[in-house]
Formats: sequence, C-alpha cells, structure tokens
Amino acid sequence: MKLTILGCYSATPRTFNNPTSQLLEIKGHLFLVDCGEGTQVALRKSKAKFARVKHIFISHLHGDHFYGLIGLISTFRLLGREADLHIYGPNGIKEVILLQLKLANSFTNYNLLFHELESRESALLFEDETIEVYSIPLNHRVYTNGFLFKEKPGERKLNMDAVLQANIHQSYFQKIKSGADVINEEGEIIANAKVTQDGPNPKSYAFCSDTMYKPDIVPLIQNVTALYHESTFLDQHQHLCEKTKHSTAKQAAAIAKQANAGLLILGHFSTRYPSTDFFKEEAQLVFEKTELADDFKVFEF
Amino acid sequence: MKLTILGCYSATPRTFNNPTSQLLEIKGHLFLVDCGEGTQVALRKSKAKFARVKHIFISHLHGDHFYGLIGLISTFRLLGREADLHIYGPNGIKEVILLQLKLANSFTNYNLLFHELESRESALLFEDETIEVYSIPLNHRVYTNGFLFKEKPGERKLNMDAVLQANIHQSYFQKIKSGADVINEEGEIIANAKVTQDGPNPKSYAFCSDTMYKPDIVPLIQNVTALYHESTFLDQHQHLCEKTKHSTAKQAAAIAKQANAGLLILGHFSTRYPSTDFFKEEAQLVFEKTELADDFKVFEF
Repeated sequence: MKLTILGCYSATPRTFNNPTSQLLEIKGHLFLVDCGEGTQVALRKSKAKFARVKHIFISHLHGDHFYGLIGLISTFRLLGREADLHIYGPNGIKEVILLQLKLANSFTNYNLLFHELESRESALLFEDETIEVYSIPLNHRVYTNGFLFKEKPGERKLNMDAVLQANIHQSYFQKIKSGADVINEEGEIIANAKVTQDGPNPKSYAFCSDTMYKPDIVPLIQNVTALYHESTFLDQHQHLCEKTKHSTAKQAAAIAKQANAGLLILGHFSTRYPSTDFFKEEAQLVFEKTELADDFKVFEF
Repeated sequence: MKLTILGCYSATPRTFNNPTSQLLEIKGHLFLVDCGEGTQVALRKSKAKFARVKHIFISHLHGDHFYGLIGLISTFRLLGREADLHIYGPNGIKEVILLQLKLANSFTNYNLLFHELESRESALLFEDETIEVYSIPLNHRVYTNGFLFKEKPGERKLNMDAVLQANIHQSYFQKIKSGADVINEEGEIIANAKVTQDGPNPKSYAFCSDTMYKPDIVPLIQNVTALYHESTFLDQHQHLCEKTKHSTAKQAAAIAKQANAGLLILGHFSTRYPSTDFFKEEAQLVFEKTELADDFKVFEF
C-alpha cells in the first residue's frame, strides 16, 4: 500500500497548506479519499496518474474535505475521460454536484455514479477479488464516515514437509493454496489445514477524519496496519473538542493503542500552532509508533 | 485604479496557472471579479487585504470562474467576518451556494446578499458617490456578463482667469467646482460653464470574459481607460470560436480598437500554446497598446 498525503490541514486552504485529501494505491487501485479545494492541483504536483482514479470517498460535506470535488469532476470531463467514476459520500452529494454541472451546462461525458451514505452502522461499500472497503461511522458536527481499506486474505502457504509426507501430487498444489482439501496418491482425503498455514497477513488502512474521540470504532479497525486519525488540537485545547467535535493528538493515540495499530498517522492539524511537532510528542506519550502527515508526504506499508 | 490579476488561464487550474479571478481597487473599494478554484489561496499569495472585499462579481457559472466562491465564503465565516458580502452573478448562484452551506451545516454569521442577474441588457448593478458598476451582456455558452467599473465625473476645474474676471468671491469656489452657477460681487448670476472646464477624465475599467466576438458591446465601453478582453485562441484556431464561444487575440484587439480603449489586457489563454507571447503579437497587428495578463501581475491606470 502506498499512501500519498495531498493535504492534511484543517479549516481553510492557505498559501502553503492544503485541506484534506489522500491518494491510496492498493492492489492496482488508486482511491481518492476526501477532496478539499485545490486537490486537483495537488494531484498534479504529486505527479500521480490521477486519471486512473475510479473511486472517490468523501467523509463529509465540510468544505475542507469536499469543495475540490466539483473542480476535479469538471477537469476529468475536459481531459476527455471515458471511464466510470464512483463517488461515495453523504446524502446530498449527488444533488449538489449535479446542480453545479447543470448551472454550468457541462454534464460529464463519462458515467458519474453516486453511492450516497446515510447509515450509522459500518457497511461494505466496495469489494472486488482482492480488497474490501468499509465505512467507519464517526462523530462530527455533520454526518461523517471514515473508511477502512482491507486486502482480502491471499493464498495459503504450503507446508512443504507436510505436503511431501502426505504424498500429494504437484498438480494439486495450486488447489491446496486456494484452501481446498485434496486426494493424495493413495486416494486418501487430506484436510487442507494439515498441509498449509496462513499466508502473509492482509494489510489494511483506516482513514478517520473528522471525529471526536469515539472508542466504539476500535473493534472495526482492530490490528489495522496503518491508521490515519485526525488530531485537530493539542491537549491544552481539549475543551474545544466537545463543541467542534474534533480530537486531540492524545485521543488519536488512545484509539491507535486500543486498536493495536501498526502505525498511527496524525493529521488535520489546526493552523493555530507554531509547529506540528507538538502533536507527535503528545501522541507518543500514549502510542510510540506515531508519524505526522504532511502535504505530499508518502507512506508505504 | 489598481488591478491585480489573481488568475487568467482558461479551463482547469494547473500547477502554475490559476483560473480567472481579478481584484480591482478603485476609490477605496476592493472588488473581486470572478472566483475560480484556488482564488482564496491566490488572494493570500497576493498579500491583498481581502477581508475588505464587500462586492464579488461573477461573470458566469463555469467552474474556472466560479468554483472558488464557496470556499472563500466559508473562509470569511471562519475568519469571523461581520461585514455584509454582496454577490452579483447569474440566476442560480444563490441556490447552489446556499445548498452547499446547508449540507455543511455552516451558514455564515455575516449577511450574504445575492443580486441575481438575468437581463440581456446592460444594467446598473452598484453605485455610490464616486463610482458605478454596470453589467456588459456577453455571448458565451451559458448566460454571461462582463462588468464595467466607472468613476463618476469629479469636481469641475476652475478657470482662474475667468473667475477673477467675473469678480467672484473666494467663498464660492467650492460651489463652482461642484457645477453650480453663482452670484458675483456685483450681484450678477455667472453661469458655471463660463468660469469652469471639465475636471480630469473619470477612469473606467471593463472586464469582458468569456465571450465570442461581440462588437455590439463597443458603445457600452467607448473610451474605456483599460479593457480586459478574453483571448482564448490564436488566429490559427479561430474556427473553434463559434463552437466554444470564445475569442481570438485579434478579435479582442478589434473590440479595443473600435472602443478606443486606452489599454487592452488579454487573458483567459488556452493552455495549448507553448507561449503567451503569440497573443500579444497577433493583437498588436490590430491594436498597439496591448498587454498580457499573468497571475499576480498588477496594472495601475
């Protein structure tokens, strides 16, 4: 998995800070997650082959996560896009995008497929042979979801000693890897579990922004390979979390710890602080494996 | 008048090109004209005191002139704006802006006053003691207006020889400057025209984007101090003007020549050309006093 941070600051785009957007490369897919104003320019700057994006996930309809979407859709039209574009986001996203296209008299030549969300429970949003994407219900001032991207379990690993011992012909190896029981040279049924073990652990990535501290998401993201969690505030401003429905760095770290995450990536920093280093310092008091997002930073896991 | 080009390229924002937006400083006003995606960042980069903007004029609802407006409105809210904000633009602009604010559950704390346009005739949009703003009906793929910003005539200039000759007391000078007739020391009525002449010529600026060649706007902008006119194409692509309803550099220059403009500023360049110098060269075959717009370029006139 390769995660490119296109923007990770809260509130308004500034001269050198982009609002939230991320590009996730996983099993040949290029998923765009959130799309604040200026995302299409950030995509160009990142040199991403963004015409390959077929699925865009929008967490909520605040401007710093959403106001760049209509421009990107329009640009795809001008670039002659033909591939379908799927958009997952809160109810209302279809109405507002279509209204803007209607007023510009510029409907897309490609199919724009909206998947509007309204459930307060986690739901499977997308699935193919290799990956699944689930919503993660969050708690913010407007209806908001995070997103969980999970590789499906791959092939089982052959235990070669056991395979030879069981006298299984080579032509059955692929079948065993897929999890099936097989018949050996003597005509006996050999249970799959006797000759294989689990393959490499499937990787996963959870995107959680924006939300106040919500520990009931922990079971959904248990053992996640990497967790992005918003941390708008430092501890000194924890009193602002209730009203604004945001989290502190420590709260994000607490979620990562409870979920046994492999890595915590912090973002959505309020621009009131002179340095983002404080976020890392405070989070690491709770969860050591913490990194800071930054515009155009790339994480591979 | 001070005109700051915030963006002047057509179609889509790119790494180093902003879509259309301009800031016009005139008689203490700061007017924003068009607002493509990323305009709020361009305003920050230009160091403009953009919180002072009270009137925004939107020519039409294509994305490269309009998709930055909602972000700017939201940013004004986050910055604690209290002053009224007037928005002039095509019918529909109110619906789409209010829908976005509703979906974000983020209505402004300041007054947002929409002046929706639908007339095909030039109309007075704004007026105060010193200036007037008129719409300029254009011909584009969607309903589009340009805007004409005009200083009102200032005080008349005293003809001191005539004033002394007429024996007018000094206490009447201000009254004469304002255009009134006065009574001299002998009790005679002195006609204003006998002792004054016109003051400095009022300045004016016309913004014309996007449009195909439309010579019937010439009477509206006759003798304009500076004319911005779109020139999306060079002569070699004139055949594209009919379908896209844009102009060539030569056509823009023909408008400037017929209007006897003091200066022509070209912009809205298609990004297909390796250099914008060609636009100036072609326009100057028709109208010598031609300059090119460029992002963050400032014109004073």
